[in-house]
Amino acid sequence: MNGQEDLAEACRNWWRTGIIAMRPGEIRIRGYPIEQLVGRLSFAEMIWLVTRGEVPEAGRVRLLEAALVAAVDHGPQAPSIAIARMGVSCGIGLNHAMASALNVLGDVHGGACEQAMELHARVAAGIAAGRPLEAAAAAAVTDWERDHGRYLPGFGHRFHPVDPRAPRLLELVEAAAREGLVEGGVAAIARAVENLLETRRGRPVPLNIDGAVAVVFAELGFPPPLARGLFCLSRSLGILAHAFEQMQAGERNKGPTPPECFWVYDGPPPRDYVSGTGNAEGGSEGPPAPATKQNEEARR
Amino acid sequence: MNGQEDLAEACRNWWRTGIIAMRPGEIRIRGYPIEQLVGRLSFAEMIWLVTRGEVPEAGRVRLLEAALVAAVDHGPQAPSIAIARMGVSCGIGLNHAMASALNVLGDVHGGACEQAMELHARVAAGIAAGRPLEAAAAAAVTDWERDHGRYLPGFGHRFHPVDPRAPRLLELVEAAAREGLVEGGVAAIARAVENLLETRRGRPVPLNIDGAVAVVFAELGFPPPLARGLFCLSRSLGILAHAFEQMQAGERNKGPTPPECFWVYDGPPPRDYVSGTGNAEGGSEGPPAPATKQNEEARR
Amino acid sequence: MNGQEDLAEACRNWWRTGIIAMRPGEIRIRGYPIEQLVGRLSFAEMIWLVTRGEVPEAGRVRLLEAALVAAVDHGPQAPSIAIARMGVSCGIGLNHAMASALNVLGDVHGGACEQAMELHARVAAGIAAGRPLEAAAAAAVTDWERDHGRYLPGFGHRFHPVDPRAPRLLELVEAAAREGLVEGGVAAIARAVENLLETRRGRPVPLNIDGAVAVVFAELGFPPPLARGLFCLSRSLGILAHAFEQMQAGERNKGPTPPECFWVYDGPPPRDYVSGTGNAEGGSEGPPAPATKQNEEARR
Amino acid sequence: MNGQEDLAEACRNWWRTGIIAMRPGEIRIRGYPIEQLVGRLSFAEMIWLVTRGEVPEAGRVRLLEAALVAAVDHGPQAPSIAIARMGVSCGIGLNHAMASALNVLGDVHGGACEQAMELHARVAAGIAAGRPLEAAAAAAVTDWERDHGRYLPGFGHRFHPVDPRAPRLLELVEAAAREGLVEGGVAAIARAVENLLETRRGRPVPLNIDGAVAVVFAELGFPPPLARGLFCLSRSLGILAHAFEQMQAGERNKGPTPPECFWVYDGPPPRDYVSGTGNAEGGSEGPPAPATKQNEEARR
Repeated sequence: MNGQEDLAEACRNWWRTGIIAMRPGEIRIRGYPIEQLVGRLSFAEMIWLVTRGEVPEAGRVRLLEAALVAAVDHGPQAPSIAIARMGVSCGIGLNHAMASALNVLGDVHGGACEQAMELHARVAAGIAAGRPLEAAAAAAVTDWERDHGRYLPGFGHRFHPVDPRAPRLLELVEAAAREGLVEGGVAAIARAVENLLETRRGRPVPLNIDGAVAVVFAELGFPPPLARGLFCLSRSLGILAHAFEQMQAGERNKGPTPPECFWVYDGPPPRDYVSGTGNAEGGSEGPPAPATKQNEEARR
Repeated sequence: MNGQEDLAEACRNWWRTGIIAMRPGEIRIRGYPIEQLVGRLSFAEMIWLVTRGEVPEAGRVRLLEAALVAAVDHGPQAPSIAIARMGVSCGIGLNHAMASALNVLGDVHGGACEQAMELHARVAAGIAAGRPLEAAAAAAVTDWERDHGRYLPGFGHRFHPVDPRAPRLLELVEAAAREGLVEGGVAAIARAVENLLETRRGRPVPLNIDGAVAVVFAELGFPPPLARGLFCLSRSLGILAHAFEQMQAGERNKGPTPPECFWVYDGPPPRDYVSGTGNAEGGSEGPPAPATKQNEEARR
Repeated sequence: MNGQEDLAEACRNWWRTGIIAMRPGEIRIRGYPIEQLVGRLSFAEMIWLVTRGEVPEAGRVRLLEAALVAAVDHGPQAPSIAIARMGVSCGIGLNHAMASALNVLGDVHGGACEQAMELHARVAAGIAAGRPLEAAAAAAVTDWERDHGRYLPGFGHRFHPVDPRAPRLLELVEAAAREGLVEGGVAAIARAVENLLETRRGRPVPLNIDGAVAVVFAELGFPPPLARGLFCLSRSLGILAHAFEQMQAGERNKGPTPPECFWVYDGPPPRDYVSGTGNAEGGSEGPPAPATKQNEEARR
Repeated sequence: MNGQEDLAEACRNWWRTGIIAMRPGEIRIRGYPIEQLVGRLSFAEMIWLVTRGEVPEAGRVRLLEAALVAAVDHGPQAPSIAIARMGVSCGIGLNHAMASALNVLGDVHGGACEQAMELHARVAAGIAAGRPLEAAAAAAVTDWERDHGRYLPGFGHRFHPVDPRAPRLLELVEAAAREGLVEGGVAAIARAVENLLETRRGRPVPLNIDGAVAVVFAELGFPPPLARGLFCLSRSLGILAHAFEQMQAGERNKGPTPPECFWVYDGPPPRDYVSGTGNAEGGSEGPPAPATKQNEEARR
């Protein structure tokens, strides 16, 4: 009998959340009845309430919206967008296309925002330890380059000389700081790193969308992993829009490039397989054969 | 040479979109420079602009937000939410947890909204063909039950006697109709089907969240597949919030039930495998063995 | 107290399977102790045992392996393979790349095998109803074209005049039929449809990989949805191999086409956004603007 | 004109692989015509050929198969398996269920094998630097515990006192070493770590499935990230089998626990939302409220 009670208790305690409470006919989000939120909260306020626990001040939520609006889309050359479009052409539903696309927002494609927040936090730690801003920025950048190499998350863009989203976001953060809605310290850090990079590298390496969004999220108090999640939420919208547009195009099995644009093959030359071959060194991975004439033909 | 030109042309034309245009330093969404949208559009207005092509009237976007706010979460018993939480406990990032979870918003868990829009559209087609509302609703429901069985998408809930989100959304649609922001015809259809079901089945089978959200999206002119995408976007937020909360709990490899709550095994009884057995009927799929005493033990 | 017992019982009965039984220190698959299977079963025999419940005859498992080997890869132009490679370049792990890729094996890219099995089953139903093979094939094809259009699942290939995998698989099925390992009826159906199409369309529309694999799976008694799953398992291997190869290439954020190969933009011309605009027709989706000179520039 | 040529060339060179070459009517895998592989290679030999470039000796491939067979399934309490089953109940196809499930084989659920290979490699590095096996093992374990804590990847199991798959795999590796098919050095390392742990902790912490599979893959020369991929491939089969079994059960929207087994809510107590509230500290994340009486009710 006790075993029954223990098991029942264990099952009842297995799932636990501070986000939502329910009884038949009643749904409360962070304590509020859902029907009091529907029609009163904007979607962005709901984002804040659900992830942070409270409804924010209007000015702060506007800043969150600015970041969410900025990061929605970067066109079909972005792997996430291309994947959503290819997925739809393979006959899958929008939720599946969104899933395949969101799934690639990994450390390289989606994680730069989270990493930029960590870089900014290193500078902030230096300031907290008593260094002036410029010195703290210089030390943090030097450390980062030593640990991770020359690529600084949140700065520089391979396509845009100046990413038009970044200065706009920074300007909004600075205006919010003047109104007392945020502190503005992280924006100052980002500007200091930008200046430092221009001096050190002899050319501008301006703040990009990842860096600017990182500034907004940090100023608003979002922890870095959650900030990556918000970037995903924002980009979900671009993914959805492209997936839906692709759905209307009616193409089937759309590959990355036109079919006449083949790939380069650089593996072993043509050979015959005789049953039962197999060699003890199976898996030796010598240098790949150079692309041969046969390969040239293969890709046409 | 012509081959080169043709291939270059084919590559340039392979990807095509009406959503976003870019040049170095310039990003335009639906024709607008991104820096003019950032800080001016709410995230919900951006949802509309990106998916539909224009910025909507304020009253219409508020209705969209009501639907997005309503559908965010239904707790860790919902498969999508549980999956996100389990995924995080397996050590995957938030974007991956969101992907695995979004991916299950299939026809049963996420598609009811899209299907409800189709049911409503059948009624609307009857009205357009000259039938009165009640007759059109009766005919559409009868047809639907014949094609798909007794389960009507958008009506009834296995947990809530009345789903508190549905009447609130319907009330907002009706208020918007009085203001001339929407037509109100789909709301009337939903009410007519609700009345019909109560009469036919002798008990209330009220509009649920899927049906109510379907009304909002249809009144606002969103096509059904896109409406499913919007439901996914809304639920993405709940998924993100739960995934982030789970991340802070620090559990590892969280299964669906507590480990002491085993599963029932109803397959073949214990047997020995002797090398090289294998029978010509391999794969005969007879009825599974009944759960035996051995199985009873197995699950403890 | 009774409530406790009921809840404990409900939890214990929630998950149920005939595949695996476990006790501490003991794992049985379909009744067999796992340690008797490890080292004795080939992976293909395990595939059969786990999905069907029994270990097959050696000759039948060899036929299954032929199908699994045939479907592994179709190169980086296949959306699934390209997606895996793009995903890896975005910094995600192999399991995530495999997930995003597998996820697009939808009705168009991966489902043709399942659909081909349904087409073959229609012919078989005709034969079972007493029609000769050719008449049954003709009727099934006519019906299919009426329901689904001219595209017949499992026949024709946009790249290969003859898909080299298909005749090889068919030859193996026919050899197995001569040995009494399979019946051979589905192979005959596939040949009959192939002949019929050549006659009707005046050119060969030969069996392709989806159709050939469908023949193998049907001859071996796999139900169509499971057959799609087996195709996924086979293609998982190609996806894994390409993802791992891409991982070693070290590219970051690899888009579908080279960055200098932009997309065509065919949306609204450049325009300015003035705060608070928004029109009651928001979302009117007129015909997209033709690709303009601006667009020409945009894609460079 | 030159631009055209350059663009065409860039597109042609964008995708590159050493795995597969194709021309119309011809498919070569690692140089071999596919039709020579189909019917001659086992699926496991194909796994080796595709990922490593060569067909292995028969004895080595049998060892690979042993590892693949061992790791297929661990029942519906494993998050990956539960997710696949829940996904299917939400109305998604098998490929989607497989994707959502594979996707959670992250560092905690699927990565232990890869991590165990790294632990073994540290011991091997010690041996290569001239230390005796036991000393190298002791040093590597001490270092690992310092870097990562007490949990050693590949050793110990929360359910099985002895995981029956591990000794069986180790026995097969040792037999293969006696036949000269593998070196056996990694198996010896695993045994040494096992002994060391028993001595240090005063109780057995035996090799588990992750550790045993890691031994096999290392002995066969698979690099660690690829080994994780092979684990995913093996587990894909278990996922597929459970997803297909669930499909036949016909349940809809299957949550993790029975519906009567609710969750614990530990968020803010019930409160009313008044439009326009919102506080400057929005998002303060104080300690969650203790589970209250209201919560007790909420979960029933």
